[in-house]
Amino acid sequence: MALIVQKYGGTSVGTVERIRAVAEKVKSFRDEGHDLVIVVSAMSGETNRLLGLARDISSEPSSRELDVLVSTGEQVTIALLCMALHELDCDARSYTGSQVRILTDSAHTKARILDISDKPIREDLAKGRVVVVAGFQGVDENGNITTLGRGGSDTTGVALAAALKADECQIYTDVDGVYTTDPRVVPNARRLEKITFEEMLEMASLGSKVLQIRSVEFAGKYNVPLRVLSSFTEGNGTLITTEDIEDMEQPIVSGIAFNRDEAKLTVAGVPDIPGVASRILTPVSDANIEVDMIVQNIGVDNQTDFTFTVHRNEFERARRIVEGVARDIGARAVIADQNICKVSIVGVGMRSHAGVASRMFKSLSSEGINIQMISTSEIKISVVIDEKYLELAVRALHDVFELSKKAEAE
Amino acid sequence: MALIVQKYGGTSVGTVERIRAVAEKVKSFRDEGHDLVIVVSAMSGETNRLLGLARDISSEPSSRELDVLVSTGEQVTIALLCMALHELDCDARSYTGSQVRILTDSAHTKARILDISDKPIREDLAKGRVVVVAGFQGVDENGNITTLGRGGSDTTGVALAAALKADECQIYTDVDGVYTTDPRVVPNARRLEKITFEEMLEMASLGSKVLQIRSVEFAGKYNVPLRVLSSFTEGNGTLITTEDIEDMEQPIVSGIAFNRDEAKLTVAGVPDIPGVASRILTPVSDANIEVDMIVQNIGVDNQTDFTFTVHRNEFERARRIVEGVARDIGARAVIADQNICKVSIVGVGMRSHAGVASRMFKSLSSEGINIQMISTSEIKISVVIDEKYLELAVRALHDVFELSKKAEAE
Repeated sequence: MALIVQKYGGTSVGTVERIRAVAEKVKSFRDEGHDLVIVVSAMSGETNRLLGLARDISSEPSSRELDVLVSTGEQVTIALLCMALHELDCDARSYTGSQVRILTDSAHTKARILDISDKPIREDLAKGRVVVVAGFQGVDENGNITTLGRGGSDTTGVALAAALKADECQIYTDVDGVYTTDPRVVPNARRLEKITFEEMLEMASLGSKVLQIRSVEFAGKYNVPLRVLSSFTEGNGTLITTEDIEDMEQPIVSGIAFNRDEAKLTVAGVPDIPGVASRILTPVSDANIEVDMIVQNIGVDNQTDFTFTVHRNEFERARRIVEGVARDIGARAVIADQNICKVSIVGVGMRSHAGVASRMFKSLSSEGINIQMISTSEIKISVVIDEKYLELAVRALHDVFELSKKAEAE
Repeated sequence: MALIVQKYGGTSVGTVERIRAVAEKVKSFRDEGHDLVIVVSAMSGETNRLLGLARDISSEPSSRELDVLVSTGEQVTIALLCMALHELDCDARSYTGSQVRILTDSAHTKARILDISDKPIREDLAKGRVVVVAGFQGVDENGNITTLGRGGSDTTGVALAAALKADECQIYTDVDGVYTTDPRVVPNARRLEKITFEEMLEMASLGSKVLQIRSVEFAGKYNVPLRVLSSFTEGNGTLITTEDIEDMEQPIVSGIAFNRDEAKLTVAGVPDIPGVASRILTPVSDANIEVDMIVQNIGVDNQTDFTFTVHRNEFERARRIVEGVARDIGARAVIADQNICKVSIVGVGMRSHAGVASRMFKSLSSEGINIQMISTSEIKISVVIDEKYLELAVRALHDVFELSKKAEAE
């Protein structure tokens, strides 16, 4: 018997039938004797419908009123799910963010949780009730309705689990776990039984859209065991947890992430003098353009090349800025390339293993793939390559690190 | 410069375009220097959509969760209306029932208002803001969301006007005021400039569905001047107010109401002994059937006839009950008739004028209309006649009391 927080996303509660199915799943956990707190999103499509109404009225609606508007989406779901639970003779009670009280700061549409009152929830649980909480929303100290930003229901789930010291926070979604890489690219990609918070963060930020990155950080910070699993199929999903230190046999590489949303800008023939990097990047960041990878090699003949990547949506804007800077600093040329992709191998195991990088580079070169940029962190190595090699590279790396085999330690 | 509470119903805010039109109307009042508190309903169709979702899940949904569900309808409207006001550079702020705080009892789906905190609203008004409040909803002392029952937004408007001691409560609807009778029946029916609370109550309860009857009672009790007017056309509507004692020349009859939703049951040949009326009506009321008119004449030959009317929806159920009772008490027969209607003349003026009833009866008889039942109150006389004479009777009475002429005192 455990205290479990379960979060069901918009697709999982997208229709009356699906809400009924969620109620049955919840009831079966309740029948096993668990205490349950259920966090739900708005029915899929509802948030967009509400935002559409706002957009029809105003191109720049007040963020306070936007929160009043979109928070109704989850409020509808909590009521319907409670009704569905009652139909199964399962006692249940709904709470809006304000009723719980999930106290946030006043940053409307992107508020941060400050505090959660667990008293009313604990009282309901003690009475044998399932508690159903509206995700994504809270209330500030003046009683204004706030929202945590899109996808914030995951964060609500994790924050509630942390506040209640729950045994596990289960995130139900439309995929059945975290995979070694995207199964659409590598058909024998394998679902991971376990992954560390750090690995999950690298995977998530690199484009595996399974979980909200903020909720993973939150879970890691408060050490809430987090499990991703499917609403629609049976299975244990993937447990995201702290690194198991006793687990000596853990795989070196846990997964392969990739991203084809970036574009690359190189300022070639830059005078190799102090302050040049900042002269190039400051106007870019002043224009609110986010820069991802940055590579600068040592200079030769008092000249160097400076390369960075931005999101493709910002590419043209960034190029115009950089071309101006290049003239000012007397660089030779700006080389712009949108046909790139980033491929990364991620794994806490690589911390203690030498030779991972060379194995990766060798594998790519044996496929004839030229590496344009390299960047590394403690638990990840990323390369930028020609976009056309994406699938080939991911499959080759998936093979060479034997990711389709179940690791012995699992 | 006045403090005005305006209430806009579901049709008035039924689309984004109409919400924009309401915003413009509100802005124009604001520009005249008035302080404004706006109460809105859910966009038309929204409450039914939400109830439909509930019905798909449960035949008997929890009333607490129903309130959580349907209260989202008004919450959407307050946010959208504020956005529309902001677009017109009109400062505005939305409040849910719970945020205001409109404190109610805990009778979910039909709660009664206990108290309204006017402090936050007054603070906003002092800052020059338009305050937009969700109608129809409140919160109980434990923080549960409650609703006042369908149509309850009128009550919210009146209650707010009473709490704020507003100069006027304006109810915007799809009709442009209260008429002497239904213009579909009498084309030259005239809009009334003024009507008393008592007359309005009689008109409303007799089938003029302009205002929620509860809101009229409330307005009368707290002496809130109430004005009914159209969202879609210009005009002063109808002011509902306390009887103007100085207004000696007020018309004897203000309006004609009618109702064809009733059916008539007569128990004929009832022994004329004490306790018979209650023996007939007790089982009817025990079955939760509402009885409207009751007529019993003096007995002849130790026998009498007992007649009452019920809503047609309850007719068959009432008939079965009464037939059982008739056998038990040895009555001669039960005569049932669904083809009836009730026509009433209403006016505070008839208190001090004799001869109103005879004028009414004479007018009906000169049209060859037989009166089946008569019932009177201080300010109204109702008759039950054959349904087929409804239009004829209403037109005749409208003529004889000269209702299409503007009264001199107005």
